[in-house]
Amino acid sequence: MLTVNVNFVSHAYPIHIGAGLLDRTELFAPYLKGSSVALITNATLEPLYAARLKAALAPLGKELIQIVLPDGEAYKNWETLNFIFTKLLEAHADRKTTLIALGGGVVGDITGFAAACYMRGVPFIQVPTTLLAQVDSSVGGKTGINHPLGKNMIGAFHQPQVVIADTALLRTLPLRELAAGLAEIIKAGAIADAGFFDWIETNIDALNRGDEAATAEAVHRACGIKAQVVAADEREQGVRALLNFGHTFGHAIEAGLGYGAWLHGEAVGCGMVMAATLSQQLGLIDSVTQARLKQLIAAAHLPTQAPPLGNERYLDLMRVDKKAEAGQINCILLKRLGAALVERVADHNLCAALTASVQPDAVVKPNA
Amino acid sequence: MLTVNVNFVSHAYPIHIGAGLLDRTELFAPYLKGSSVALITNATLEPLYAARLKAALAPLGKELIQIVLPDGEAYKNWETLNFIFTKLLEAHADRKTTLIALGGGVVGDITGFAAACYMRGVPFIQVPTTLLAQVDSSVGGKTGINHPLGKNMIGAFHQPQVVIADTALLRTLPLRELAAGLAEIIKAGAIADAGFFDWIETNIDALNRGDEAATAEAVHRACGIKAQVVAADEREQGVRALLNFGHTFGHAIEAGLGYGAWLHGEAVGCGMVMAATLSQQLGLIDSVTQARLKQLIAAAHLPTQAPPLGNERYLDLMRVDKKAEAGQINCILLKRLGAALVERVADHNLCAALTASVQPDAVVKPNA
Repeated sequence: MLTVNVNFVSHAYPIHIGAGLLDRTELFAPYLKGSSVALITNATLEPLYAARLKAALAPLGKELIQIVLPDGEAYKNWETLNFIFTKLLEAHADRKTTLIALGGGVVGDITGFAAACYMRGVPFIQVPTTLLAQVDSSVGGKTGINHPLGKNMIGAFHQPQVVIADTALLRTLPLRELAAGLAEIIKAGAIADAGFFDWIETNIDALNRGDEAATAEAVHRACGIKAQVVAADEREQGVRALLNFGHTFGHAIEAGLGYGAWLHGEAVGCGMVMAATLSQQLGLIDSVTQARLKQLIAAAHLPTQAPPLGNERYLDLMRVDKKAEAGQINCILLKRLGAALVERVADHNLCAALTASVQPDAVVKPNA
Repeated sequence: MLTVNVNFVSHAYPIHIGAGLLDRTELFAPYLKGSSVALITNATLEPLYAARLKAALAPLGKELIQIVLPDGEAYKNWETLNFIFTKLLEAHADRKTTLIALGGGVVGDITGFAAACYMRGVPFIQVPTTLLAQVDSSVGGKTGINHPLGKNMIGAFHQPQVVIADTALLRTLPLRELAAGLAEIIKAGAIADAGFFDWIETNIDALNRGDEAATAEAVHRACGIKAQVVAADEREQGVRALLNFGHTFGHAIEAGLGYGAWLHGEAVGCGMVMAATLSQQLGLIDSVTQARLKQLIAAAHLPTQAPPLGNERYLDLMRVDKKAEAGQINCILLKRLGAALVERVADHNLCAALTASVQPDAVVKPNA
């Protein structure tokens, strides 16, 4: 088992990474204080893993409240959140009840936000079941739901007590979701660690086929990078914004096509290529660096060409990004492999990058 | 102008108290960082005060987003909250947009919660327009909305940048709402300051007729007491629970009758009498102390007898209180005037107090 410690001033927590951790009672035991536990998962995962997690918790003698959500990004909304609140209130969950999120980013984000708001805050534990959730949404305490006018617009910073990332759960992950997780791993290398970027290039075939040792090392290194960045900036006032590399374009793709058409990781993969193209056009990086990033994204079976939404629509969608200020769009740009910066970018520069990134006849669904 | 400073470890803010503060640009100016400001109020207050507040803000040159909510506790729910989010997103409000709550407890609580969740947190300012809001909901950072299964069950701790309590706004306050505010002022004396309790007894007639000097002093002293208590316990892990004196019974009354039938302050006023009766039955205080509290509540034109919901219904409603643990009800009890404690109370003791507090033929609406 590998462990990354996330050290915030106000709260520290460990991320445990390894095969078979779901069954290990002793990893959960230190964090369950109250008399009840709420296990929150989705309808796809419940038959696969809920019984095992319940068996792991059974020796602890807690009352178990099970809440099963519908599966999919389309349900990351207020109605689902309120369903959780209703179930918790009906079961008389109290301020010491710990919520356990068993699932991918959607289950993790919505459960974390439910934990942030239920009775103004209860503890929660993340058990991420996708590669994307293991490297991304479990680290940093961002929780939330979507609003029809913007993704993740409503949420809170709320840190888990512990993250238990069982890499054996990834064996049942569809290949498309594996690729989506690789996008965030590549991102970590691109913005913060050129040596890790090299390592991913060398090991991309092993990662593509889900090799366990390679995957565990990638999760460990990517979580370590993210933990360092977020610990320096818990509330995203500064350096943490760099973790949004690829996300300003990516969120526009997701919103423009309708949430769920592309996976988040697919949109971020493509968004990183777009941001690299913009960085090159602005003279920050050379064409070789842009090409290396684009090639690695392609090698991870992620899309590299943006869907043709129209430049105006892209700009409108990017203006509701959380990093925007007074309608001005801030982008994360590459300085070189392993280093990034935030910069306000003029509309005409964005349009040039969008035009270069869009292939008019591109197939919109990357794996359709 | 009187000022109380609320000093949290993570954040300090001032509460300014005095007549005519609504018009003073310089009280708002230090706290408005972004390029836009959202003024959030309700349909009753908008025609009374919005133009004055906008005139005060005008010299600062901010884009102003006005959001008008329907008036009433019945609207302190998700639909209203989401209406705020939609308006903010449509107006491209960003992370530096400050929300200003111009209103009573409902507007303040829902605006504060919107500020806590919009883009995972934006700054906000409280301009409380009721006596209750000036002494209670503006101090301590509790924000939230109601759920059909419980009052204030969904929320966050989110501290304002500044509270501007203009006591001249209370001149238009209905007498019933003035009395509701006195309940929280009496509470502050009862749990923490016997001298202040004496002062209220002496000045109750002046307070009842809205005498400005007496009211400003009462607000200042009650806010000072509350600020001391919450600063010692920002997240309500310990001593802060004492501020809930009267609230466990009060919340049950509000939920049992349907939110809005009794005002929050009326329910808390009656709830304090019930808690004093329970304290007496448990041998903590004598009958003279119980009678003094009951008499002061009556002198403030607040109800002293509980509506006949039935003991079982009361217990059910009290079990969803946020202080309950594993279905056990915790109550705030009086040790003497000026001192309180939290204690788990057995159902049969609660039933005895409920029976003593309920007059079967009582008129349910205190001012009907």
